Amino acid sequence: MTRKINVALIGYQFMGKAHSNAYLQMPRFFESDTVPVMRVICGRHEANVQAAATKFGWQEWSTSWEAVVKRKDIDLVDVSTPGDSHMPMAVAAAKAGKVVFCEKPLANNLKEAKKMLAAVQKSGVLHMICHNYRKAPAVTLAKKLIEEGKLGDLYHFRGTYLQDWIVDPKFPLVWRLDKRKAGSGALGDLASHVTDLARFLVGEISEVSAVLETFIKERPLVDNPKKTGTVTVDDASLAIVRFENGAIGSIEATRFAPGRKNYNERLNELELYLRDDPHYVQGFRNILVTEGGGVHPYVGAWWPPGHLIGYEHTFVHAVYDLMQAISKNKLPSPNFEDGVKNQAVLEAMESSSKSKKRVKVY
Amino acid sequence: MTRKINVALIGYQFMGKAHSNAYLQMPRFFESDTVPVMRVICGRHEANVQAAATKFGWQEWSTSWEAVVKRKDIDLVDVSTPGDSHMPMAVAAAKAGKVVFCEKPLANNLKEAKKMLAAVQKSGVLHMICHNYRKAPAVTLAKKLIEEGKLGDLYHFRGTYLQDWIVDPKFPLVWRLDKRKAGSGALGDLASHVTDLARFLVGEISEVSAVLETFIKERPLVDNPKKTGTVTVDDASLAIVRFENGAIGSIEATRFAPGRKNYNERLNELELYLRDDPHYVQGFRNILVTEGGGVHPYVGAWWPPGHLIGYEHTFVHAVYDLMQAISKNKLPSPNFEDGVKNQAVLEAMESSSKSKKRVKVY
Amino acid sequence: MTRKINVALIGYQFMGKAHSNAYLQMPRFFESDTVPVMRVICGRHEANVQAAATKFGWQEWSTSWEAVVKRKDIDLVDVSTPGDSHMPMAVAAAKAGKVVFCEKPLANNLKEAKKMLAAVQKSGVLHMICHNYRKAPAVTLAKKLIEEGKLGDLYHFRGTYLQDWIVDPKFPLVWRLDKRKAGSGALGDLASHVTDLARFLVGEISEVSAVLETFIKERPLVDNPKKTGTVTVDDASLAIVRFENGAIGSIEATRFAPGRKNYNERLNELELYLRDDPHYVQGFRNILVTEGGGVHPYVGAWWPPGHLIGYEHTFVHAVYDLMQAISKNKLPSPNFEDGVKNQAVLEAMESSSKSKKRVKVY
Amino acid sequence: MTRKINVALIGYQFMGKAHSNAYLQMPRFFESDTVPVMRVICGRHEANVQAAATKFGWQEWSTSWEAVVKRKDIDLVDVSTPGDSHMPMAVAAAKAGKVVFCEKPLANNLKEAKKMLAAVQKSGVLHMICHNYRKAPAVTLAKKLIEEGKLGDLYHFRGTYLQDWIVDPKFPLVWRLDKRKAGSGALGDLASHVTDLARFLVGEISEVSAVLETFIKERPLVDNPKKTGTVTVDDASLAIVRFENGAIGSIEATRFAPGRKNYNERLNELELYLRDDPHYVQGFRNILVTEGGGVHPYVGAWWPPGHLIGYEHTFVHAVYDLMQAISKNKLPSPNFEDGVKNQAVLEAMESSSKSKKRVKVY
Repeated sequence: MTRKINVALIGYQFMGKAHSNAYLQMPRFFESDTVPVMRVICGRHEANVQAAATKFGWQEWSTSWEAVVKRKDIDLVDVSTPGDSHMPMAVAAAKAGKVVFCEKPLANNLKEAKKMLAAVQKSGVLHMICHNYRKAPAVTLAKKLIEEGKLGDLYHFRGTYLQDWIVDPKFPLVWRLDKRKAGSGALGDLASHVTDLARFLVGEISEVSAVLETFIKERPLVDNPKKTGTVTVDDASLAIVRFENGAIGSIEATRFAPGRKNYNERLNELELYLRDDPHYVQGFRNILVTEGGGVHPYVGAWWPPGHLIGYEHTFVHAVYDLMQAISKNKLPSPNFEDGVKNQAVLEAMESSSKSKKRVKVY
Repeated sequence: MTRKINVALIGYQFMGKAHSNAYLQMPRFFESDTVPVMRVICGRHEANVQAAATKFGWQEWSTSWEAVVKRKDIDLVDVSTPGDSHMPMAVAAAKAGKVVFCEKPLANNLKEAKKMLAAVQKSGVLHMICHNYRKAPAVTLAKKLIEEGKLGDLYHFRGTYLQDWIVDPKFPLVWRLDKRKAGSGALGDLASHVTDLARFLVGEISEVSAVLETFIKERPLVDNPKKTGTVTVDDASLAIVRFENGAIGSIEATRFAPGRKNYNERLNELELYLRDDPHYVQGFRNILVTEGGGVHPYVGAWWPPGHLIGYEHTFVHAVYDLMQAISKNKLPSPNFEDGVKNQAVLEAMESSSKSKKRVKVY
Repeated sequence: MTRKINVALIGYQFMGKAHSNAYLQMPRFFESDTVPVMRVICGRHEANVQAAATKFGWQEWSTSWEAVVKRKDIDLVDVSTPGDSHMPMAVAAAKAGKVVFCEKPLANNLKEAKKMLAAVQKSGVLHMICHNYRKAPAVTLAKKLIEEGKLGDLYHFRGTYLQDWIVDPKFPLVWRLDKRKAGSGALGDLASHVTDLARFLVGEISEVSAVLETFIKERPLVDNPKKTGTVTVDDASLAIVRFENGAIGSIEATRFAPGRKNYNERLNELELYLRDDPHYVQGFRNILVTEGGGVHPYVGAWWPPGHLIGYEHTFVHAVYDLMQAISKNKLPSPNFEDGVKNQAVLEAMESSSKSKKRVKVY
Repeated sequence: MTRKINVALIGYQFMGKAHSNAYLQMPRFFESDTVPVMRVICGRHEANVQAAATKFGWQEWSTSWEAVVKRKDIDLVDVSTPGDSHMPMAVAAAKAGKVVFCEKPLANNLKEAKKMLAAVQKSGVLHMICHNYRKAPAVTLAKKLIEEGKLGDLYHFRGTYLQDWIVDPKFPLVWRLDKRKAGSGALGDLASHVTDLARFLVGEISEVSAVLETFIKERPLVDNPKKTGTVTVDDASLAIVRFENGAIGSIEATRFAPGRKNYNERLNELELYLRDDPHYVQGFRNILVTEGGGVHPYVGAWWPPGHLIGYEHTFVHAVYDLMQAISKNKLPSPNFEDGVKNQAVLEAMESSSKSKKRVKVY
């Protein structure tokens, strides 16, 4: 028998769209005894949330997340809103006994993140954070190779998340450039992804030295381009990190890298160098991570080898993993503990940038 | 008001899955006043077709395509079966006055292809062939650049479609290696794609010199691996072509290229060299074809810049174009005329390989 | 004791410069008991040949190759002139009992090439043809891998040599576009290189189907740009080939590929796919062929791993191989037999282009 | 009239070989009214220095650099020894009124570097430091593009110099791992190169936060592999830098990056993104920096477009620039002032790694 999980999604913009698609597609491509039911989508603007519901096939829509998270017919609350609302929503959902699936970064600061973790632990509900890139088959394969010891001891990590959408000084002061709403800039939006992959692949980060920079300090207001306002978040964050296992690394995130949109445009490929190969044929091999039949993770559910998947598929994989976890009543990965640890690294980076000192991560 | 097009899909395997997904996704991402309704899916094996219907949300399923194509409530017949059945299905659908959307190659030979074109023309129905790669944004952009004259006169075309799935001599004699079922091997399956892109981007092909080769002539039977049977199609086809506009080119397709699964793994990228750039900065530029806002074709409907789309999206674009054509009652592109011309090129290649002479394409 | 080989070089332009540099550099980087002595350089224009002699340190210069090739103090004659003079020079050198080292293509046609081979065989002198790309470490490594059976049976060869220097219709009618002087265009200049690599790596070519094309048929005269003359060679040559061992391939050469200067810009890298790798880590590996210590061929003589060598080094390697062959009184490779076989393939391509038929190579 | 500059080279190993080759090749490829004469090579081991002299054509050899640098017939002293001897040699050469050309890093510490600068300034002699990568045509072109404003304001610099030659813990304790001899490890050997390029392309560095790490702290002794000794230099150095112009960057150097030998294996290519391109064709362009005729720097002296140059050519370009500077009696670039500034950055990195604080560069 198929078990149905009634989902309430809060948020209908970029992430709301990605999550809606994931709920829609998962059962169509993956075999699973536990499947999501797209029960209700929530948002503040009635017309917009209604349109989103129609577009993606949600059974209902609502403008009150507070009411929805308490509904008895809801099993899972998905928090896909900007960071400043994650904490109250997740806490309320946890209190109501729902599985909580939350977008990254977990919160806008470490204090809120810890509250969220405490809430889900207290309620004993399952929880997951949507660090979708862990679910890219190439990343999952990298993890497997490291765990198998194929790479030997790890000495270095280099991670960059590069975008260019605000390099024009005339680009307006949108909400993502407002600390109250977004918490931080490139740091929380992008460096959080790299930090998650660093932790996933290499291990816990113990110390950071960082520089956060705002290159363009004043920008035109969205509503009144003749006036300007102050950018209160970082345009770029750059950090050196030390891992507990002795490796060192760099984590860079920026919105000022002309020509780079996400810099992960070859999502289906993994570059691998194996020191055990015979010396004369050693070289970085480019693995096209699209083999089904259990050779490569996730991709067998989609298309034959060599047929690419894209960005949105990582969300489908995350939902698949979440459903498997619910099926087995087992904590999914990554979860709010990862979210808290991630936030602690980000907070150490901010702190280091201010103090100009190397900072321990707690 | 939204116009609804009731679709009957014949076939539920690889292409059936790709088409089902396309009908499902198109209205969720694209704005269109004409949208498909997933009315009925047809197939020979009842259990399988029923499972496919459930999986992808078809309202009904049937094991009789003959009955379905005549149904009054069907507007569009989608032929996604192996090549040997295209002709009878498309002809029947045309006679019944349905829009016909057919997988490539149009038929297993030129004679059948011409019958199909004659049928749709006689009935006056709209028709389209699913050469999905034309709908990859990078290809559509290349076409636009050529039409704008950005590349100047065209002298050369090089197209390769490389796979490796039968390089092992023990791989069994599946239906795709049986001429009666598949019509041809790499030629119809893969070279037809390259030929379509050559025609789309450069122009009509006037002459071909070709070699078709079957490297492994006997293979184990699927049902009885101790016995072998004869491979009756080509493992690889290699052709030199001349275009009507004076350009020359090569079209290669093979299932014997170790390491190549499809050789289009960077589907979101276009390499472009412009001779008009200042001399000291001339170079091949790698265009990440993911900009929305009308900058790059199709992609604005999906995700922000830098977020990749994959293989399946090309089918969604094809369905979108088909719906737009239906909406305007205008012949979509590519259509059965393209299918016939494509088939004529393939047939000339086969003929050239046998006669060892350069052959004109009629 | 070091054995000294007195060299007479005929030609001081592009190839003369490359060969001069090779004689100069070889003993400075390679250990060899046989070394070249730069005795005399020959050319028709006195001032130019004198300048070349001074520049590169030739002991003498001369305007009479006829006199020089007979000199008793000369051991080796190096023919680095345009193709129309190769035959008389090589034949005279052979008759005089000299080692003959000749630039490619061996001659402007098969008949002349055969005369040259007959002459060196009759005289019993050592002979070598300068197909320098065989001496690129990446190519030599590829050969080794094939001989070891690492690639298994070979099914496909794809070789392109792409340039763009005459794509502008106003580019003048230089000697390389004159059949009397150059023998052919892209065919002899570029396709001869690809043909040599095809023979070296895959084996003998048995049949060809080819198209030779001259896109721009009239060009301005060098001396009088207001007048035009007829281009008598091919701008591009494109061929399908069959090898004796059953493999098929394509050989393309053109001077009309905008943006491509030689298309071998990553000379130190070899892309290799091994089907024997564990399935989940299979991928094309990029081998940086710069490891010394006997791991990779030739490069140990130059710099530590990771320090690139360039185009000119392939000529140094050729001279090194030639000296080793002289030292052991053993026929070097490639030699005039290769030159004749190469010429036979080129001639078959020309013939096929005219007859529009597949042509056997004799 | 050609002016001849008598050169004394101290050192005959890796750098001695590279410099010898540069003196040899420069006048053979470049037009210059000032040319080096290979007068004398110095080294401690008589047999070795004699062999080097013979190999590369030095007129004399000597085991006493002290005597040589005072000789009246010497115009230029080239210091290509390990870092611990740079200071005394350069100071002595300066006092003797010679042009001084010194390998990088200028010295093993800032104090010595400043002494060297003071010495050449006091004597009024010309001086140059051999940061050869500035002379790679791709780097020189990048500088030109930045100076022209083609890249607009600079926000980010990312530089990595990656090697892997000591990743095996059994690799012995060679002199490069001994602080007394080498001054530092990856920092002075590799990060100095990246720092030079950062200063050349972006501007002066004002602050650094760095981590230096020694992953393998004990290694077998060279002479007695059964015993081990302590590694006293860094295996890797990783720094965040701030530039005076507001840009931020990272500078990484390591000998623990498996598969990377130098990570500059595409020395002839420059990746460039121009925001001024029409939006729909924006992309990173790969410029093959091999066009002569004044289009690209230096390369016109070598071979036609598309024919690669390698590592050693950067030294030839440095010697060419040095000769031009001598000809015009103008300070060459980069010179000891650059050496001192570079050393100040490296010293700040060491200091920051120890203090765990962001450090200003003086």
